[in-house]
Amino acid sequence: MKNAANKALLGRRNILGSAYRLFYEDPIHLVKGQGVWLWDAEGNKYLDMYNNVPVVGHANGKIVNALTKQASLLNTHTRYLHENIVDYAEELLELFPRELERVVFTCTGSEANDLALRIAHEVTGRRGTIVTENAYHGVTSLLADMSPSLQPVATYVEVVPSPVKLMEMHGEAGVKEAFSQQIDLAAQRLAERGFPVCALLIDTVFASDGLFIPSKGVLAQAAQTIRKHGGLFIADEVQGGFARIGKYWWAFEQDEFTPDLVTLGKPMGNGHPIGGVVTKDALIREFGERCRYFNTFGGNTVSTAVGLAVLNELKNMDAPKYVEQIGQVFGAELEKLKKEFEFICAIRGGGLYWAVEFKGYKGLSPTELAADLVNQLRSNGVLIGVCGRNAEALKIRPPLILAQEHMDLFFGELRQQLQIVKG
Amino acid sequence: MKNAANKALLGRRNILGSAYRLFYEDPIHLVKGQGVWLWDAEGNKYLDMYNNVPVVGHANGKIVNALTKQASLLNTHTRYLHENIVDYAEELLELFPRELERVVFTCTGSEANDLALRIAHEVTGRRGTIVTENAYHGVTSLLADMSPSLQPVATYVEVVPSPVKLMEMHGEAGVKEAFSQQIDLAAQRLAERGFPVCALLIDTVFASDGLFIPSKGVLAQAAQTIRKHGGLFIADEVQGGFARIGKYWWAFEQDEFTPDLVTLGKPMGNGHPIGGVVTKDALIREFGERCRYFNTFGGNTVSTAVGLAVLNELKNMDAPKYVEQIGQVFGAELEKLKKEFEFICAIRGGGLYWAVEFKGYKGLSPTELAADLVNQLRSNGVLIGVCGRNAEALKIRPPLILAQEHMDLFFGELRQQLQIVKG
Repeated sequence: MKNAANKALLGRRNILGSAYRLFYEDPIHLVKGQGVWLWDAEGNKYLDMYNNVPVVGHANGKIVNALTKQASLLNTHTRYLHENIVDYAEELLELFPRELERVVFTCTGSEANDLALRIAHEVTGRRGTIVTENAYHGVTSLLADMSPSLQPVATYVEVVPSPVKLMEMHGEAGVKEAFSQQIDLAAQRLAERGFPVCALLIDTVFASDGLFIPSKGVLAQAAQTIRKHGGLFIADEVQGGFARIGKYWWAFEQDEFTPDLVTLGKPMGNGHPIGGVVTKDALIREFGERCRYFNTFGGNTVSTAVGLAVLNELKNMDAPKYVEQIGQVFGAELEKLKKEFEFICAIRGGGLYWAVEFKGYKGLSPTELAADLVNQLRSNGVLIGVCGRNAEALKIRPPLILAQEHMDLFFGELRQQLQIVKG
Repeated sequence: MKNAANKALLGRRNILGSAYRLFYEDPIHLVKGQGVWLWDAEGNKYLDMYNNVPVVGHANGKIVNALTKQASLLNTHTRYLHENIVDYAEELLELFPRELERVVFTCTGSEANDLALRIAHEVTGRRGTIVTENAYHGVTSLLADMSPSLQPVATYVEVVPSPVKLMEMHGEAGVKEAFSQQIDLAAQRLAERGFPVCALLIDTVFASDGLFIPSKGVLAQAAQTIRKHGGLFIADEVQGGFARIGKYWWAFEQDEFTPDLVTLGKPMGNGHPIGGVVTKDALIREFGERCRYFNTFGGNTVSTAVGLAVLNELKNMDAPKYVEQIGQVFGAELEKLKKEFEFICAIRGGGLYWAVEFKGYKGLSPTELAADLVNQLRSNGVLIGVCGRNAEALKIRPPLILAQEHMDLFFGELRQQLQIVKG
């Protein structure tokens, strides 16, 4: 197996080229997954506290069966009739406010965000877009233009400080007003530059901005403000959707408002490439009158069978309720650690999506401290990641089927490593 | 089953909205596929002469097994080591000229074309792009901007007449010079407008321009011309790749030159969402130095297992040779029909990709004639499509495992319908 790992590593360098990056200095060569567990080529077993895509567990038997059954029968596109796409669309749209009654399927969250913006461009006749200052929205050229975490934004894009930063400046009570005001100013700047605003594109959990579950009214008032300027509110639920933060199916539901467009991706197919745009009839109708959109693989008979199976698993476990409950315990445990270890300066998140931020300690920068912990946990059989602009926080984002026993194990290992840091 | 079909139809209208379009006025409700055969809900059996995505046949057992085996084991992304991505990349790159030694995996042909252009933008520092006048390159915002078959092109895009049209004007001998001259002029127009050219993006079989297998020198000289202007040649092989036109693996190989970037999609996973960009080390290195590119599902352990299985099937059947041979018989049969039926005005294509163009006959327009034939063939158990700017030609593009007996059946049905038209 060592040879396979060497080949996997050398081959990557030789063939895939430098646009591909790996996790860990000594990368992990995974060979097997089951539930919340992963195994490497040397037989080491890891608790997966990082991967949000396999939302109902690695190699989930029901999902694999749905995939196999439909792939053995028929895999074809949406220009023939098939009940899978309709069944899946019905089950999915049930989980949205009544106004959001249409769905277009894509293969990735990037394709979904890109399509949502195409719709916004067509319907408003405008191009200006507002995003948060460390946003990431996907891999297409259009989305790279508005992903300041990747590269400088384009001239038709304006950034606003994220609510994470605004909370530091204005406190929780001031975030709503401050965020809305920033959007107002950004829309004005865009109009002055000749790019009147078409959309506010928001990751509803502000993941790449440091993770932030907005307090009441923040998103609703942002939506009101963007609409005042004639723009649409696009809720990017690729990270926050499918019950990730608990209580609700979609992170935007924490607030009382309905986005104009909602985009879905990552966990939607438990690893199978599925994405989608959920929106209002009027918007998709206006887009459809002028534009054709045919996505060769999007909504195919296999993808929709898989999507439906994933959704059924999440519904069967009552994911919003389950994640809300385990998330409360999770959050309480993290708060305990924060009290115990002074170098933990902030805990943000909810459900099963958490950021644990550090300050410098004993000559270690927050970034070094986070990296050390990620590596030490890996050596002790737990996979997590880092987040934040300088990778100064731990990113914890396990499959949603995480149980109490896994959580106990995780906190045991984490506490032990924090103790070692504390010295 | 009638109920299922009704539900599939009504549900679509209610839920998917007007951006979705169906084939046929009385749409087909498919339930099963096997090899070159499809079955509808009423038990009718169809010979599939249309679908290029299931390149090694509907529900191919080897592909389904590879999919099931890997999905049961592990589905994860490219930031852990895994041999599948390396094995697949090696097998794939073997089929390209030595200079094209790097591959980046995506989920769709659209993502591949979009990425190829992002690379071209980064490397040249320019934005101007040249495409043919009825080109289609994909669904992203960037690609819609340069897909004149969908919508007017953006200001940084120039169109050139396709070689199909230039052949009509200048004859076969004149196409090479004429096409190159048009590219030259387009590059000048872009530069004058302040958008120096970064790339010529070409579907190497000019499918949406009417299908045209270029004669010797057309592509090579086009590449020379675009490079003279400092631009790159992007070969869009989403339609023409994977031995579709026979003799070669890639349609660009008909000519003696090496594109700077090659994009892949549709048949790559026999229906599983896989795409990719194959390119030179210098280009991907320069892109990778400044840009991160992480595609969540692209190159995952399952997609690469499926891609490799499809490639092995194609290699085992020696697809380039097989398609060349059956394609010669196919073309000869079509030429016979052209001699027999005066309303067939042109046969274009090669391998297993053909366009049969009509002129008006007995009061029927070419478009009506093509539509009638498609519908009549459907009633007689054969699925084909239409192409051309006014849908005035038949589009024939079956899975590559088409055998002599299927071809005999197809030509029997086609001749019978052509006889009825002739009257």
